[in-house]
Amino acid sequence: MCKACDYTIHGRNHHFGWDRANAPVLTIEPGKTIEFECLDSSGGQLTPSSKLDDVSRLDFARINPVTGPIRVEGARPGDALKVTIEAFKPSGFGWTANIPGFGLLADQFKETALQLWSYDRDTLSPAAWSPWAKVPLKPFAGTIGVAPSAPGTHSVVPPRRVGGNLDIRDLAAGTTLYLPIEVDGALFSVGDTHAAQGDGEVCGTAIESPMNVVLTLDLVKDANLAFPRFTTPGPVTRHLDAAGYEVTTGIGTDLFEGARAAVAQMVDLLSTRTGMPAVDAYMLASVCGDLRISEIVDQPNWVVSFYFPRIVIE
Amino acid sequence: MCKACDYTIHGRNHHFGWDRANAPVLTIEPGKTIEFECLDSSGGQLTPSSKLDDVSRLDFARINPVTGPIRVEGARPGDALKVTIEAFKPSGFGWTANIPGFGLLADQFKETALQLWSYDRDTLSPAAWSPWAKVPLKPFAGTIGVAPSAPGTHSVVPPRRVGGNLDIRDLAAGTTLYLPIEVDGALFSVGDTHAAQGDGEVCGTAIESPMNVVLTLDLVKDANLAFPRFTTPGPVTRHLDAAGYEVTTGIGTDLFEGARAAVAQMVDLLSTRTGMPAVDAYMLASVCGDLRISEIVDQPNWVVSFYFPRIVIE
Repeated sequence: MCKACDYTIHGRNHHFGWDRANAPVLTIEPGKTIEFECLDSSGGQLTPSSKLDDVSRLDFARINPVTGPIRVEGARPGDALKVTIEAFKPSGFGWTANIPGFGLLADQFKETALQLWSYDRDTLSPAAWSPWAKVPLKPFAGTIGVAPSAPGTHSVVPPRRVGGNLDIRDLAAGTTLYLPIEVDGALFSVGDTHAAQGDGEVCGTAIESPMNVVLTLDLVKDANLAFPRFTTPGPVTRHLDAAGYEVTTGIGTDLFEGARAAVAQMVDLLSTRTGMPAVDAYMLASVCGDLRISEIVDQPNWVVSFYFPRIVIE
Repeated sequence: MCKACDYTIHGRNHHFGWDRANAPVLTIEPGKTIEFECLDSSGGQLTPSSKLDDVSRLDFARINPVTGPIRVEGARPGDALKVTIEAFKPSGFGWTANIPGFGLLADQFKETALQLWSYDRDTLSPAAWSPWAKVPLKPFAGTIGVAPSAPGTHSVVPPRRVGGNLDIRDLAAGTTLYLPIEVDGALFSVGDTHAAQGDGEVCGTAIESPMNVVLTLDLVKDANLAFPRFTTPGPVTRHLDAAGYEVTTGIGTDLFEGARAAVAQMVDLLSTRTGMPAVDAYMLASVCGDLRISEIVDQPNWVVSFYFPRIVIE
């Protein structure tokens, strides 16, 4: 499938949750390049023909499968796994949903909602949400990590210091990611691929999209990282910043509440400006708007800002 | 001073703290353009010849003066003040300090530190911190707001829903800011000008720099804003993103602690990479690095990331 790859791991080799006891599907020497076939975060339960009811019927035991794990020879606790993110091969299909009980404004948006996306997998030109918006795309892997040292099976939902469901939208092609290793062999897996997402993933889903991912796995001995870190090869927002931003703020003593206030106001602004139903504006904010901490030192009040790229709706 | 301006307000017309009882220095009709002479946040206590001891001797009663207030005819509670940020006329002098007890990592950096900056006020080419770094500049007003409705004098330090010490680095030339008005006449003031700052202002100071600011003040009747919002005319980071970013993360149940972890790791990275003393790396992070919330929905752990532009040190 991938001429420059040393190995291909098919999507049937997936697991749910993280467990150091999971048997590796492959053992490699450091420095090898692998193509991973990644399922979407519904594990194939949602398709281009899905309806709203299919979101209500989702089996959460099958949510967020990750492809792997890969055992890396010589990897020891305290080392870092250096993951060079080489390329994505997107599928052209994606979905975004509001799932009751999940998301930053779950108390305000209790209804199930679903948006299906069809995008050009070769050109990656902005994906239409007619007639409201066009969303610039930048594929990345939402879940990327290694096994934690604590025994047992750990939910895939929360990210950890070993990575996992990081949902960092700049883990895109060209970025180099360093993950703290906690177990011998590292036990690396990847999945939950997204065609686009803003900082925060505020409604709880991105443009969830199955796609293949090409990665090179290497080791940095004795790196002793506290948390993951990464290096981007260039700018991270030029695909969507040309027309500037609409920005709302939330000001107060709690960053989480500040984020909620900023996003709620942006939903109002987008809904008023475009005519979109509020829950759709909330999902649109999730796939392309960014939460930033503008100041965190002017005691006792912090400022959280939500940046929405104007090019999406203008 | 300003040919396109209707009025000029000199720096002697400043006040400390916000108070609806402050007498306006000028009353205008909506739509007028004003040039404000803004003192730096030390109120002139720090100068190009200042030494470290001058930081220790700062009189905090004279911190963060704002120029104003301006009374806007017809402004009523519930209206928004539309502030068009026309231009900045920077002075070429700036300072950054670590002030004990102040800043996101105050527990780790207890020493007083001072960096004096000299920059080209015409070209605004990146400001040198020899031999470590060159910081791209983008002037903005750190404190910009209107009087709160609650009687009495309120500290200038915390920002509020009426604005104030927002320290939002994108309140730069070309941006339009909307502030919720709480008192008749609005009573607008501005100050605390910065030549550069990252999202977060993590050490507690930016490149603090006296400069003149040209603003147009207008009204949006019955806007009923919850908090300030703004619109940028174009991209907000292209002056510093060309070489990409080094990024550290903090992962856990508390956004504030996540931010602290991400910044602490970036200080280590910058100090190791450049040889800068740690407190200097912390101040450098404050003037050009950005705190972002990468995800805030994967319960119970959130991801805060700190983005440092590589162009500054490469």
